[in-house]
Amino acid sequence: MNQEKIVHPVNVKSEMSLNELVTQFEKSGAFGAGRLSEATKIFEKFASDKEALKFLGLAGAMVPAGMRHVIVEMIREEYINVIVSTGANLTHDLVEAFGGHHIRLSKAYNDIQLNRLGINRIYDVYVKNREFVKFEKNIQKILEQIDPVKLEKGIAVYELLWEIGRNLTDGKSIIKNAFEKKVPVFCPALTDSILGLQLWLFRQRKPIMIDVLKDIQKMIDMAYESKRAAVISIGGGVPKNHILQTMLITGRGFDYAIQITMDRPEPGGLSGASLSEAQSWGKIKSGAPWVDLIADATIVLPIIVGAVKERLTKSRV
Amino acid sequence: MNQEKIVHPVNVKSEMSLNELVTQFEKSGAFGAGRLSEATKIFEKFASDKEALKFLGLAGAMVPAGMRHVIVEMIREEYINVIVSTGANLTHDLVEAFGGHHIRLSKAYNDIQLNRLGINRIYDVYVKNREFVKFEKNIQKILEQIDPVKLEKGIAVYELLWEIGRNLTDGKSIIKNAFEKKVPVFCPALTDSILGLQLWLFRQRKPIMIDVLKDIQKMIDMAYESKRAAVISIGGGVPKNHILQTMLITGRGFDYAIQITMDRPEPGGLSGASLSEAQSWGKIKSGAPWVDLIADATIVLPIIVGAVKERLTKSRV
Amino acid sequence: MNQEKIVHPVNVKSEMSLNELVTQFEKSGAFGAGRLSEATKIFEKFASDKEALKFLGLAGAMVPAGMRHVIVEMIREEYINVIVSTGANLTHDLVEAFGGHHIRLSKAYNDIQLNRLGINRIYDVYVKNREFVKFEKNIQKILEQIDPVKLEKGIAVYELLWEIGRNLTDGKSIIKNAFEKKVPVFCPALTDSILGLQLWLFRQRKPIMIDVLKDIQKMIDMAYESKRAAVISIGGGVPKNHILQTMLITGRGFDYAIQITMDRPEPGGLSGASLSEAQSWGKIKSGAPWVDLIADATIVLPIIVGAVKERLTKSRV
Amino acid sequence: MNQEKIVHPVNVKSEMSLNELVTQFEKSGAFGAGRLSEATKIFEKFASDKEALKFLGLAGAMVPAGMRHVIVEMIREEYINVIVSTGANLTHDLVEAFGGHHIRLSKAYNDIQLNRLGINRIYDVYVKNREFVKFEKNIQKILEQIDPVKLEKGIAVYELLWEIGRNLTDGKSIIKNAFEKKVPVFCPALTDSILGLQLWLFRQRKPIMIDVLKDIQKMIDMAYESKRAAVISIGGGVPKNHILQTMLITGRGFDYAIQITMDRPEPGGLSGASLSEAQSWGKIKSGAPWVDLIADATIVLPIIVGAVKERLTKSRV
Repeated sequence: MNQEKIVHPVNVKSEMSLNELVTQFEKSGAFGAGRLSEATKIFEKFASDKEALKFLGLAGAMVPAGMRHVIVEMIREEYINVIVSTGANLTHDLVEAFGGHHIRLSKAYNDIQLNRLGINRIYDVYVKNREFVKFEKNIQKILEQIDPVKLEKGIAVYELLWEIGRNLTDGKSIIKNAFEKKVPVFCPALTDSILGLQLWLFRQRKPIMIDVLKDIQKMIDMAYESKRAAVISIGGGVPKNHILQTMLITGRGFDYAIQITMDRPEPGGLSGASLSEAQSWGKIKSGAPWVDLIADATIVLPIIVGAVKERLTKSRV
Repeated sequence: MNQEKIVHPVNVKSEMSLNELVTQFEKSGAFGAGRLSEATKIFEKFASDKEALKFLGLAGAMVPAGMRHVIVEMIREEYINVIVSTGANLTHDLVEAFGGHHIRLSKAYNDIQLNRLGINRIYDVYVKNREFVKFEKNIQKILEQIDPVKLEKGIAVYELLWEIGRNLTDGKSIIKNAFEKKVPVFCPALTDSILGLQLWLFRQRKPIMIDVLKDIQKMIDMAYESKRAAVISIGGGVPKNHILQTMLITGRGFDYAIQITMDRPEPGGLSGASLSEAQSWGKIKSGAPWVDLIADATIVLPIIVGAVKERLTKSRV
Repeated sequence: MNQEKIVHPVNVKSEMSLNELVTQFEKSGAFGAGRLSEATKIFEKFASDKEALKFLGLAGAMVPAGMRHVIVEMIREEYINVIVSTGANLTHDLVEAFGGHHIRLSKAYNDIQLNRLGINRIYDVYVKNREFVKFEKNIQKILEQIDPVKLEKGIAVYELLWEIGRNLTDGKSIIKNAFEKKVPVFCPALTDSILGLQLWLFRQRKPIMIDVLKDIQKMIDMAYESKRAAVISIGGGVPKNHILQTMLITGRGFDYAIQITMDRPEPGGLSGASLSEAQSWGKIKSGAPWVDLIADATIVLPIIVGAVKERLTKSRV
Repeated sequence: MNQEKIVHPVNVKSEMSLNELVTQFEKSGAFGAGRLSEATKIFEKFASDKEALKFLGLAGAMVPAGMRHVIVEMIREEYINVIVSTGANLTHDLVEAFGGHHIRLSKAYNDIQLNRLGINRIYDVYVKNREFVKFEKNIQKILEQIDPVKLEKGIAVYELLWEIGRNLTDGKSIIKNAFEKKVPVFCPALTDSILGLQLWLFRQRKPIMIDVLKDIQKMIDMAYESKRAAVISIGGGVPKNHILQTMLITGRGFDYAIQITMDRPEPGGLSGASLSEAQSWGKIKSGAPWVDLIADATIVLPIIVGAVKERLTKSRV
């Protein structure tokens, strides 16, 4: 059998770069390390494909966990060109864009105590109530600046987010960078977030209609116009399903697919489903490279982006 | 210390009822079995609370997995009176309402083979392409029957689903039963589903505007008007977050809370977060009973509903 | 395709028995519920096979969690006839056999506080230091009563455990019942437990040699002499591997296999490995029924044993 | 509150070293990335503590997955000085020491096909039957070379493994390097492995007695003689419990503790238990740094070892 490869044990050394690490993982090829090397290889390919529609799916508390700059890097380097996100990640991007902070606490409080202190917990990260007060003041001000005709007649979520992005000053914001790079940010469940609730609040004073079907129209148009399609999905949820269903419409399926998740297939939900399952639906092409990377995205996403940056920087020279 | 309780070993016997099993689990109190008994106790309490707003959160492929009648039972028995669902569960409820089936296969096919056979996989359940053809025909016909003025001026998702429910004939349908019991069904990410894509298709021919902020208004009104609030969340995702955020607005928090999930807290996403975390946000009242039941919902949900049915039937006598 | 089966939605009713529940799960067949019905069917078959060598693998804190009587039931009803256990489950069986208790606490202490109170935690179950003092007194007394020649020349673990069982008075003890039913209890890592440490303590005063290779000889002899072989493995670990490796020697493989675990395959360890993997090694026969039940054993084991008890009781009539 | 720290978003760059990555993770501090930085900090501390007894717990298929050289690095650099392993990892180290290979396959076979081809599967790694034939020939030859008096009167597992190590020629072997560095390798469930079965085979021809209580004596002596104690546990299982129980005897507890696992606490078994739980038992000192790193060890162990190597190399200059 010539389709055999030896599992070469991983070697580490001092001052080893992320790319060198991943290259070692490619030589072993086994378990999570092997899948990480596979994900990096697929991401390297699609990141440098100038003709592909390249989706980033963003679920899980990625912004509170400090992944904001990594995502901005992906936008600026044009590794991706469409984002589908939960409302929470956008809310937290804006919290930071408005000068707020996510914090860690060295003293242990229980959740009832935190509530009394006005501190909200996101696993081991915290955000104070006052950040949301600041958030409300700033986002309402931005909403006021958007053309009221646009808001009234029905604005798509991606259009609204570009309008918000246009009004931001924080150069490190995902929404700001997406606006500048003309990367549409879709958020199919926008009302399911504090940002969404701010829209409801705005409506108490002024007319606003969110036209979610216009977002679908835009996504489908983009999908039809693309030559190839790629996805890196982080954390499952609505973003994962939404991205996969888009290529279903075109009848073409994805040409590259990566998912990073800690969910598992056995409970049967889509978040934990193998990308293989998506092939039965025709969402991923037969023969297209794909990988399920079962790992904490806060660890592996920076590795993938860092290693690919190194690879693409070198190949450019 | 008088706050100690002995872990009484669980005894099983022939012809043991679900309620007897859960009662044994209450005597042991340990691990998953203990949490299942706790969930049953909380559910028994809120199911019989006539003044509570009682949410069911529905994520994961619960309908394909055969949980449809259990959910209908919860609606009919008035154990719950609001549903927040993924679009997929509603789509699959309609697939069955239109005479379609979810199937199991005794022969093993890989996902590429399934794709060629026109069969789509949902973990170990399958649904044929032709069911979606039937789905399209039927749902478009129903959409045609809805008052076009309502559709054009902006219809809330819960209104649209009631309109659909009104037009169904299948007495076992979740959407039909919800309509009949006036249980609003919210679906914050409706466009993220095959049902949602059908609305986009409908718009190619006729005007339709989905007014997602009207759903928020309805939820918040219901929350404000309620005396108490309860939640049983299955599978995390948007439904879980959406239900929890609703009571955040009222500033009151939930009086009872149960979640059933196989997700874990460590990756930091909301789906796997402990309900304890929700207390820091004020989404669950200090002192309110809550439990995280880490279990496969297809196993434990029928047990909870069956055991509570037995308890409430007896207490009624 | 006539190999299709419809997923029949699960129906629940008041006073539903465990067997009725599992029968409903068999009709749906999907996800965890389907696998639970499959496990019950396989267990029913092998529990009533009089010619099979039937292994119970016992890892995880099953005794502290209240599963002691369920296991005793399996021994008494002859559903199983060999046990391979962790040292911890045997230690905790003895703690209870000597009149000690596992407890639950209604007040919340952190682990440092518990340590000061002399209370040891096993997830949400607790055991006091004083139970181990009692344990030491009793087990040393029993060791004194065993023929010193046997101990000195090299005693197998299963022989030692039978000697201990002979000296117990608690009719609900796993070790006692195993002794009475002549069910050998193997414990390949006996020294990795508080019971094992007591043997080391005993050796400070008197000669004792544990002959672990004699256990292997016994297991292999039993395997060779058996017509068929069956396994129900709870929680993975050494017990799972040990049982599977036994049939490897005979070159025959298991005829029935069930595993119940919350571990997953992706990290690559044996505990979470699918039983399918064991087929590549020849540990499970081609064509033999097997199932991976991803579930909390404290919930599903009582259901399986209760349902099978009902089935076998009825079939006996 | 001055115990607050801002979550600084992680920045990646081209040619970033492992240490730079972990330093970024320390600045964010959140989720898995934060815990990885914490683990690295603790490991750096104990790796450079010359007076500590430093345990490596080795469960899961670490050698088949290519972690062999990383472990050898830890031995050579004296980051650890005691190993407690499963029998499988030792078996697979010897398979490679005898010139065998673990392989990956690019063609997909199912497990029944693999069995017919004489190929055994370990998740996504494979090992051929013929490697075990070679293993048997070599290990029996080595056993023949050990002083028969030693074998007959009762040899501890760690002594036996040193004898084996003495007879190996492969400079990359864990067992060989452990022998050379006088690092005892304990394996409490040695008979639960193919290596253990070879001892049983050897006994068919010649007398051999494995004295497992002698191992306990050695571990306890080492524990008593140590000034401080540290543990890095990979994958739970017997190695984790065994290491933790050792310091229980001394009544002192560990001074540093790291665990890397994908198991979860909720099912209640020790493998997935938080190290916090170990504090209730006094196995870890109050105030000692510890961390639960929920991650795939094949990804994070090389990062920790590589980053610490860089830190210690620099601090030496």
